Amino acid sequence: MNTTAVFISVIHMAGALSACIFGTLPRSNPIQRAVTGSSSPMSLSQCQPYWTSIDGDIDAHLKHAIPIRSPLSVFEPMHRLTFSAPYTTAPALCIAACELVDGHRDQAMAAAAALRLTHAAAFVHEQLPLTDRPRPKNRPTIDHLFGPNIELLTGDGIAPFGFELLANSDDPTQNNSERILRVIIEIARATGAQGRIQGRYNELELEYVQSEDEKWSHLAWINEVCKKKEGEMHACAGACGAILGGGSEEEIEKLRSFGLHVGILQAIGSMVKRGEKAHMEVVSGLRRKALEELKAFNQEKIGPISSLVEPELLLSVK
Amino acid sequence: MNTTAVFISVIHMAGALSACIFGTLPRSNPIQRAVTGSSSPMSLSQCQPYWTSIDGDIDAHLKHAIPIRSPLSVFEPMHRLTFSAPYTTAPALCIAACELVDGHRDQAMAAAAALRLTHAAAFVHEQLPLTDRPRPKNRPTIDHLFGPNIELLTGDGIAPFGFELLANSDDPTQNNSERILRVIIEIARATGAQGRIQGRYNELELEYVQSEDEKWSHLAWINEVCKKKEGEMHACAGACGAILGGGSEEEIEKLRSFGLHVGILQAIGSMVKRGEKAHMEVVSGLRRKALEELKAFNQEKIGPISSLVEPELLLSVK
Repeated sequence: MNTTAVFISVIHMAGALSACIFGTLPRSNPIQRAVTGSSSPMSLSQCQPYWTSIDGDIDAHLKHAIPIRSPLSVFEPMHRLTFSAPYTTAPALCIAACELVDGHRDQAMAAAAALRLTHAAAFVHEQLPLTDRPRPKNRPTIDHLFGPNIELLTGDGIAPFGFELLANSDDPTQNNSERILRVIIEIARATGAQGRIQGRYNELELEYVQSEDEKWSHLAWINEVCKKKEGEMHACAGACGAILGGGSEEEIEKLRSFGLHVGILQAIGSMVKRGEKAHMEVVSGLRRKALEELKAFNQEKIGPISSLVEPELLLSVK
Repeated sequence: MNTTAVFISVIHMAGALSACIFGTLPRSNPIQRAVTGSSSPMSLSQCQPYWTSIDGDIDAHLKHAIPIRSPLSVFEPMHRLTFSAPYTTAPALCIAACELVDGHRDQAMAAAAALRLTHAAAFVHEQLPLTDRPRPKNRPTIDHLFGPNIELLTGDGIAPFGFELLANSDDPTQNNSERILRVIIEIARATGAQGRIQGRYNELELEYVQSEDEKWSHLAWINEVCKKKEGEMHACAGACGAILGGGSEEEIEKLRSFGLHVGILQAIGSMVKRGEKAHMEVVSGLRRKALEELKAFNQEKIGPISSLVEPELLLSVK
């Protein structure tokens, strides 16, 4: 992580950010051009309906795929735990990447749903009260909707269902089997032993790093936890959207790299302290690298996806 | 379960079984024909090299796919827990089904490896010491190779790796993408919320059924636990082998049904008491149904796969 890569001053960044949130930036604002690398609009009024629409479509797809039905002992926890997991921007990024390369939203819907499912499964398992897992004051850190055994099994049931949805989205009339198989490999890797699982291993090894201040000063936290967990999941989401939307290899790799920086930004977002120069330098560096990847795309279309580097904007979506 | 369906007397069955194990039956023995429904050979000397060869090939494939490499904290548990899981006949059945429909062993190897991996992942999670899971005298039921956190994460890493191996076995020169996607759906279903996971839910609900005698008298145990866990996993294995080997839809369904009965037989095998008429009736009924499914195949080739209905024979393989 190059903490010295500051292309936009802290003051300008904070100004651009707050202006974007309140939708006051004109198209030609020079600060915004510096942030987005283009003249594309980023106002809240434009971005929010886009993300709300995507999230609504993914929700509808999943509610249809996992109805609460018999046997209730299996499907009720599966449904509730899927929809109670914390919000992640990875599935929406997958759809946005697909649309950016001129794909249709439906082409990436199963992959977006699979990303939501694998995220929910991982979250449920991370919260399990295992006998050797430290718990603050002997209490679980979240309210458990079900007993640990059911939560363990439900996580185990949710994850393969994501791959089933993906494989089921194969449509011989579209000749998309190769793309779907490629996306299955991408998601299996990002969620597996070399992706999110490795990030979780690292997180447990670094669990002595307690406070958010300590995490910031411990660069390994950002590189080995934020990058391996949220970073690679968003990188996968960007690449999968581009693959399914028919993007070129160059576009796939650019959206993978864009997603990596977006994911790390999302992961460290809650730790950012306004006014802390070191924090803002890291954030600015990540934003700059993310937006750099979008320069090769149609500048008239990058407005919505580029808003993913504004954590406050995204938080307001959900 | 139709316990009255006894086509071969208990005495004849026991005789055929022991003769098969010791390889003393001549090809034309009438008892053997009654067991196999054909004159195909079933002697140990013929069957054992076949299964040993298949198991050796699957082991070699998995050892190559999951070497012990860096980061050791991730890959060592993944390797060790995959190879320390109890033996299951499902992967070998997958290969045998593929070969029975004239497919090549390599065509089903990734699916067989994925079946081994999902079985290992499920076993590791079933042994986790969760806070609400009853443990005899407060001790775990197995020796844990690693801490619970690592075993939880490793199970979570092993399962998607099976899907990755499968998707990676796509070979454009063979035009097999559709078959692989179909197999991914089959394995996701058999391992997921409507398959093995549902069997495990049922097992936990029926956990008051303690002794093997009680399990036998509790028909729900066989129908809701043995069938959903080992039964459907073997059914999936038979179907996947036939799909990948290029079998017809009829052959796929016959090998699925054969696998279902084989899996239930494997699950109840350890509970069978020699001489108990009720036990032998159930076992004979399952064998008869399994072998019935093989009648449509080339009778010269069913010898090895039909030996899967002899639990003692199989136990001697490993």
